[in-house]
Amino acid sequence: VARILITCGPTREAIDRVRFLTNASSGRTGLAIAEEALARGHQVDLVLGPIELPPPAQAHVVPVTSCAEMLAACLRLHPLCQAVIGAAAVSDFRPAAPLDVKRGREDGAWKLELVPNPDILAELGEKKGARVHVGFALQLEAETARALEKAREKLRSKHLDWIVANGLDALGGEEGTYFLLGRSGPPEELGRIGKRALSRRLIEAVENSLKDLKPRADQGR
Amino acid sequence: VARILITCGPTREAIDRVRFLTNASSGRTGLAIAEEALARGHQVDLVLGPIELPPPAQAHVVPVTSCAEMLAACLRLHPLCQAVIGAAAVSDFRPAAPLDVKRGREDGAWKLELVPNPDILAELGEKKGARVHVGFALQLEAETARALEKAREKLRSKHLDWIVANGLDALGGEEGTYFLLGRSGPPEELGRIGKRALSRRLIEAVENSLKDLKPRADQGR
Repeated sequence: VARILITCGPTREAIDRVRFLTNASSGRTGLAIAEEALARGHQVDLVLGPIELPPPAQAHVVPVTSCAEMLAACLRLHPLCQAVIGAAAVSDFRPAAPLDVKRGREDGAWKLELVPNPDILAELGEKKGARVHVGFALQLEAETARALEKAREKLRSKHLDWIVANGLDALGGEEGTYFLLGRSGPPEELGRIGKRALSRRLIEAVENSLKDLKPRADQGR
Repeated sequence: VARILITCGPTREAIDRVRFLTNASSGRTGLAIAEEALARGHQVDLVLGPIELPPPAQAHVVPVTSCAEMLAACLRLHPLCQAVIGAAAVSDFRPAAPLDVKRGREDGAWKLELVPNPDILAELGEKKGARVHVGFALQLEAETARALEKAREKLRSKHLDWIVANGLDALGGEEGTYFLLGRSGPPEELGRIGKRALSRRLIEAVENSLKDLKPRADQGR
């Protein structure tokens, strides 16, 4: 049994008091992973972006809105957890300076300055220690081979143990088309499956990696 | 019994294949209005932005994503309807040119050019004829008097019969704080009420306006 930190949902990056940048993430992937982890007896910290669907009652839910809030919650919980699954669709950019007022149509065209957001899994990866880290890579490439190569680069640069490469079809829906990549071996083609089925495979992979870590951690003592 | 065109939910204005501009509208207001209208025997065309909640089964639902799509659907349905209730939280701006690729963090800061979207109720107002038109005005002013003055200006410039002024608290939630303004008379303070209660008052107002229209239309023959 492990304590698992799961990020879930989109983030919203405020333009003003009403408008924001976001994406179509419904939170279904993170919720399915949280439900599967809980069903297998794990403890779940769910850092949850703004979604309509209800989170599982047994999860410890930390609601957040922006990437900055999600990062802060993750940095606080990370030391307490043995595994991290970054299933949130975090916005890569945010407005440089949110407006205090709501700009109206009559004010005409304007240029919104966007700045890069921190990469949450990359930041947690710097403090990884004896933990299992899992990420997702949205594949927009037409070519699968190139998409999987990019996912593997992400896995390496963020010090992940597992990465799920998923197509755009996974965003917001009940199922998606997935590949699972580990630190070694060929990509595992999961095909088009439901998010709970993906979660079963993923939690199994995390559990195996946690078992592999244990002896190493024991040797270190 | 009337055929009523109701717009509902937010719109999404694409930045690229993944990201968009939007707001926190859950669609609860438009759905509650549609349910109330159907319960009172009206026929409902529901032009529906992307939301998680299910629309009523008896409504004729036209799903749309962007303001441009919502406007096109409204222009098509408007001639067939006797009343229009614009409950959608339409984005006032859209990116001038959506990107084909997804820009990455590594590409650094950038400036996104935003251009004003068409004002759907204003455009329909130009073709109003013998119809009842209802809009909403989000009040961001600290001062209620100033907010109501702005709502009344909107009512006049868009040729509306009724306008609901609502606070930011109404966005996404189960209830809101509302004022109802007609073409004459003082604003009606509805206070903080549920969205179904607001809908009852609103459909009643529309029905009364439709009754007032009838004799005028008959006289015109």
